[in-house]
Amino acid sequence: MTKASLIVIGSELTRGIIQDKHTILVSHELSRMGIHFSESVVIPDDGTIREVLGALLRNNDIVLLTGGLGPTTDDMTRSAIAEAARTELVRNEEAWSHLVETLKDRAYGANEKQAFIPRGFNLIPNPFGTAPGFWGKVNDTLVVSMPGPPREMEPMFRSSVLPLLRKNLGMKEEERDEYSTFLISEAKLEELTRTADPSLDWGTRFQDYRISLYVSGGDKTKRQEAIKKLREMTGRERVVEGDKTALGILVEELKKRGETISCAESCTGGLAASNLTSLPGSSSYMMGSVTSYFLSVKEKVLGVKKETLAEYGAVSEECALEMADGVRRVISSDWAFSITGVAGPDKSEGKEVGTVCLGFSGKDRESVAVTIHLFSFGRESIRRRSTAAAFILMKAFMKGENIKDIVQGWTVF
Amino acid sequence: MTKASLIVIGSELTRGIIQDKHTILVSHELSRMGIHFSESVVIPDDGTIREVLGALLRNNDIVLLTGGLGPTTDDMTRSAIAEAARTELVRNEEAWSHLVETLKDRAYGANEKQAFIPRGFNLIPNPFGTAPGFWGKVNDTLVVSMPGPPREMEPMFRSSVLPLLRKNLGMKEEERDEYSTFLISEAKLEELTRTADPSLDWGTRFQDYRISLYVSGGDKTKRQEAIKKLREMTGRERVVEGDKTALGILVEELKKRGETISCAESCTGGLAASNLTSLPGSSSYMMGSVTSYFLSVKEKVLGVKKETLAEYGAVSEECALEMADGVRRVISSDWAFSITGVAGPDKSEGKEVGTVCLGFSGKDRESVAVTIHLFSFGRESIRRRSTAAAFILMKAFMKGENIKDIVQGWTVF
Repeated sequence: MTKASLIVIGSELTRGIIQDKHTILVSHELSRMGIHFSESVVIPDDGTIREVLGALLRNNDIVLLTGGLGPTTDDMTRSAIAEAARTELVRNEEAWSHLVETLKDRAYGANEKQAFIPRGFNLIPNPFGTAPGFWGKVNDTLVVSMPGPPREMEPMFRSSVLPLLRKNLGMKEEERDEYSTFLISEAKLEELTRTADPSLDWGTRFQDYRISLYVSGGDKTKRQEAIKKLREMTGRERVVEGDKTALGILVEELKKRGETISCAESCTGGLAASNLTSLPGSSSYMMGSVTSYFLSVKEKVLGVKKETLAEYGAVSEECALEMADGVRRVISSDWAFSITGVAGPDKSEGKEVGTVCLGFSGKDRESVAVTIHLFSFGRESIRRRSTAAAFILMKAFMKGENIKDIVQGWTVF
Repeated sequence: MTKASLIVIGSELTRGIIQDKHTILVSHELSRMGIHFSESVVIPDDGTIREVLGALLRNNDIVLLTGGLGPTTDDMTRSAIAEAARTELVRNEEAWSHLVETLKDRAYGANEKQAFIPRGFNLIPNPFGTAPGFWGKVNDTLVVSMPGPPREMEPMFRSSVLPLLRKNLGMKEEERDEYSTFLISEAKLEELTRTADPSLDWGTRFQDYRISLYVSGGDKTKRQEAIKKLREMTGRERVVEGDKTALGILVEELKKRGETISCAESCTGGLAASNLTSLPGSSSYMMGSVTSYFLSVKEKVLGVKKETLAEYGAVSEECALEMADGVRRVISSDWAFSITGVAGPDKSEGKEVGTVCLGFSGKDRESVAVTIHLFSFGRESIRRRSTAAAFILMKAFMKGENIKDIVQGWTVF
């Protein structure tokens, strides 16, 4: 497998003044091409480059560098590369013309340095700055040097360097599929993907209300087979194609129908409503919500019966049902859901932390409530996962699916 | 000069899935301490660590590591450090107790690994996750291993690792005062601190609902003088001593009084309620809320008059007043506030994005409403800053202060 490393040069980076943005860009794009990105080294402008470059040249097929191409004496990338290639720096006429055009009289003196590249190397034009990039071979390793400022480096990397790498390595782009998963912990997801197909290359990324899942390797059919297996293990609605949020999935359905929603929240205390109002244009579907944290608010504002609270407690499917029906009636929305659960840190009404009841109500539908049991990674995590669960199930409810069946199939959390 | 390097471990980082946040944090803080930060190396979870660690140990006085401490087989940081120190991994009883407490039965099996550290090394507790950190010496080099997730690494680095480095290097604890600032942009805050006293060493840190401000240098009196000047420029209630959140400031007051609160939200759509229910024990003061996103909900649930909406619009002090009074009446809380504004991206009712009206209502107090004009850094930022403003002003209102005066003194945003 082709191995690549990156050297990011700049004392502003090692003094913690600016954030390195090259590592994520380069490693992301190279990984997508199927290249093994083995290392990124961030170093100051102090000559450290000589040692680091030597070591990386020995272990890699490709070494990319950013920074250290400016006119000041500290910038010694080009001479370090020339030394490693056992050659000298020569003025490149194309680079020199560009420099004179851009800087006029100031092209002479210290700036002139920027038109020099190692003999035998090829110029990479820089339309957004004065220092061009260059590439060539040192022994068998392909070396590509790019300027440091992201506004110069990024366009050069995308328009010139990526095509150059593909051409030099005779590679075609690797296929990678992306999925969004809900209510499954990252550790569990990794375990499940290994079970589904250990021969594929799986990657996960923890995000606010979901975990993104990437799969590459094999062919399309093999990857789809593995996803099918994964879905059998997780249950329905939990592994969705593409980069989707639970909120996005619900909002898409609401917009398609041109219908409105409201919600009643206890343990999530406004988090679901806050999400439903977070996107521009949310006033076309989100009417409002009631946070009924106190029992008195459940009764007085939502009309939950005193007897329901006395007999089943606030964390019960019975209460969730009345909350959902209540908020839909009070707000006059087409659809409504409710969330009432134990977010912790302590048990409540004898119910375990992570017990969450969700109610769903809609015109021309029989209201339904379900209970889920979330593993406790802490109060905020329970609140977030309850919200995601409500969004996913609300959409399924709107589509006429059997919510109780779906939740019964959810065995893995 | 003391030389330090960092190894950042994680295949998500070298596959370009997530952005490394450790290099900038560590290099910034170490540079501030006068340590020469010589290199940051980002590598995958594939065992590369052995080689990289060996090389860096030879050239540095301090080697910090992040990541590779999880329960999966890929995570081999602890064994690589043990090998470099020519010792073995032993179970640390404190770490083990913490693991069992957190994970219960799941502490056994793969997770058990997380309680092991190299013999002779010292534990660094991790209050925000299951994998503790540890530190010790390999020959003459100080080695510190921290978990990878920033929400775990960052507090550990600040509270435990920085003091540890100072102590090990014989540096005295720097006197540094911490403040929390509200509703001031980071760039503006930096400008103001330079005006207040350019001879002091100021640092800022962007957090969710506030910007933390650190000041060191000079003596206590000099620093306090500078803070006084800063406060004169920002207006009251906006630069608060210590690490405080706007929510924390309000909750402290509510708890002290043993009183209850509710809120009515339009543009923030549940965000304030979600915050007010985010802390354990919030059910002792937060009764509930109404998100009145549609006009019909403002009228029907909160009792805002149709004429008020017609004459002044939903984003008006008049509407904010009626919303605050309305929600307090509906929910029967001691105190209530309301938030109605233009979060964007588009103007509304001819009012600019960032125009936010806040209403405050309480027993034995005349209700009051104010308007603030937030600079638009985007929808979510306006929602967050509106929420913080409501919390700060609610507390001032409860203490009988003149809210209108306070807001008139707020000239800088």
